[in-house]
Amino acid sequence: MPLTPNQLADYLAFAEELADASADVIRPYFRSQLDVTDKGGQVFDPVTVADKAGEQVMRALIRERHPTHGILGEEDGALTGSSPLTWVLDPIDGTRAFITGLPLWGTLIALNDGHRPVLGVMNQPFTGERYIGTGAGAWCNGARLRTRSCASLSSAVLMATTPDMFQTPEQRAAFAALASRARLTRYGGDCYAYCMLASGFVDAIVEASLQPYDIQALIPIIEGAGGVVTAWDGSSAQNGGAVVACGDRRLHAQLVEQLRHAT
Amino acid sequence: MPLTPNQLADYLAFAEELADASADVIRPYFRSQLDVTDKGGQVFDPVTVADKAGEQVMRALIRERHPTHGILGEEDGALTGSSPLTWVLDPIDGTRAFITGLPLWGTLIALNDGHRPVLGVMNQPFTGERYIGTGAGAWCNGARLRTRSCASLSSAVLMATTPDMFQTPEQRAAFAALASRARLTRYGGDCYAYCMLASGFVDAIVEASLQPYDIQALIPIIEGAGGVVTAWDGSSAQNGGAVVACGDRRLHAQLVEQLRHAT
Repeated sequence: MPLTPNQLADYLAFAEELADASADVIRPYFRSQLDVTDKGGQVFDPVTVADKAGEQVMRALIRERHPTHGILGEEDGALTGSSPLTWVLDPIDGTRAFITGLPLWGTLIALNDGHRPVLGVMNQPFTGERYIGTGAGAWCNGARLRTRSCASLSSAVLMATTPDMFQTPEQRAAFAALASRARLTRYGGDCYAYCMLASGFVDAIVEASLQPYDIQALIPIIEGAGGVVTAWDGSSAQNGGAVVACGDRRLHAQLVEQLRHAT
Repeated sequence: MPLTPNQLADYLAFAEELADASADVIRPYFRSQLDVTDKGGQVFDPVTVADKAGEQVMRALIRERHPTHGILGEEDGALTGSSPLTWVLDPIDGTRAFITGLPLWGTLIALNDGHRPVLGVMNQPFTGERYIGTGAGAWCNGARLRTRSCASLSSAVLMATTPDMFQTPEQRAAFAALASRARLTRYGGDCYAYCMLASGFVDAIVEASLQPYDIQALIPIIEGAGGVVTAWDGSSAQNGGAVVACGDRRLHAQLVEQLRHAT
């Protein structure tokens, strides 16, 4: 059963409380010297004290106020609830940006109704920007967001966090082919880049190797601003993996056509 | 003849006036929809209305207050002065960041005494950060900056604006070799990354294809914070080209050893 407008408004207000609470604990660690540990595995994946503290404070608030809800977090994994509603949390998306001092990381908070993310928040405490989306609308600090029109790759501004995120030769070749034809390609951005797409300054983001908590909060923001975000094969992006986001549906259709075979 | 401390202080105050004046004209264009034109040539090089307007207002102030000084600007080229002092200006370093909405661009202002840049300012109006350096010291909004120690590449955070900035096979191979051995590599950043190095959050920046106005303002900031920045062969970085900046002299010596043959 879909959420009523009142329920959605209540949960959005609660998501903003989570953003406030996590910002209070994360913000003091930004641009302080951190202990960075390696989770292990081949890819360097920094985990900061702030990341863990941010998730803890959000989990505690959810358990206190919505004890039946599930939680899927980057740091502490999944807690299944008796409700179909699940909060999907990434306290610091863009840990590399965070540890290099760049204000492009964000706290990602999504509410998934069991079928899809129905609201999303990207909070950037250093710049004081809070992006929120409900699928039907998206805003930054109260200002309505709208993607811009861009019908073809040759006039598109394309972004990806790093060319190193593509893991197979097919993925690398597919991205390189797009980058060579785009008007401009820019690296670095993490969640912030998706918010720039929602704001109408970026036309396409093509990434891979994402986790569900990396993308779920951004889906209602992009869709609420008039954009579209899916997996490379056109299916739902909510499980992460290889993702393509566009501000204009015409461009998205073209990119999926070129990416679907490289998933 | 070197500048006296009083002269340096006066010119630093004037550089801050230039930063204020350029910010007033550039800031309203950030995150507005811009006309982007192509300067021509093979590399896409966006020029915005803001870039031109920012340089005009700085040039006018310099001609009014220091009519004997030279000016080297990104947009309007070189004006030779009767004084050995030259102002080196890049109104928007990081035009790709600017047009994608990312707050990583900056206004770069350097004063060159005929031998080297003796003061530098990097001004970021959206985040409200102003980095200044005199070679003997560096500050952000009044707080003293110091690079951090990092003696070896395997523990270093390495940055470059984009892997596409390396133009020869030798340069690309040299950068890839460093990136494969660094603890972490992050793309995107432009002038902002150099200020994060001065702030002690980044250990090395290795770039190529820079113009003199891309790097001169950053030299006194990095040196004032205890770091070192040179060309890949260890000579002065003030002419741009291929540049390596490190927070720790030991790391810099190692990188120059590996980069000098790829210049």
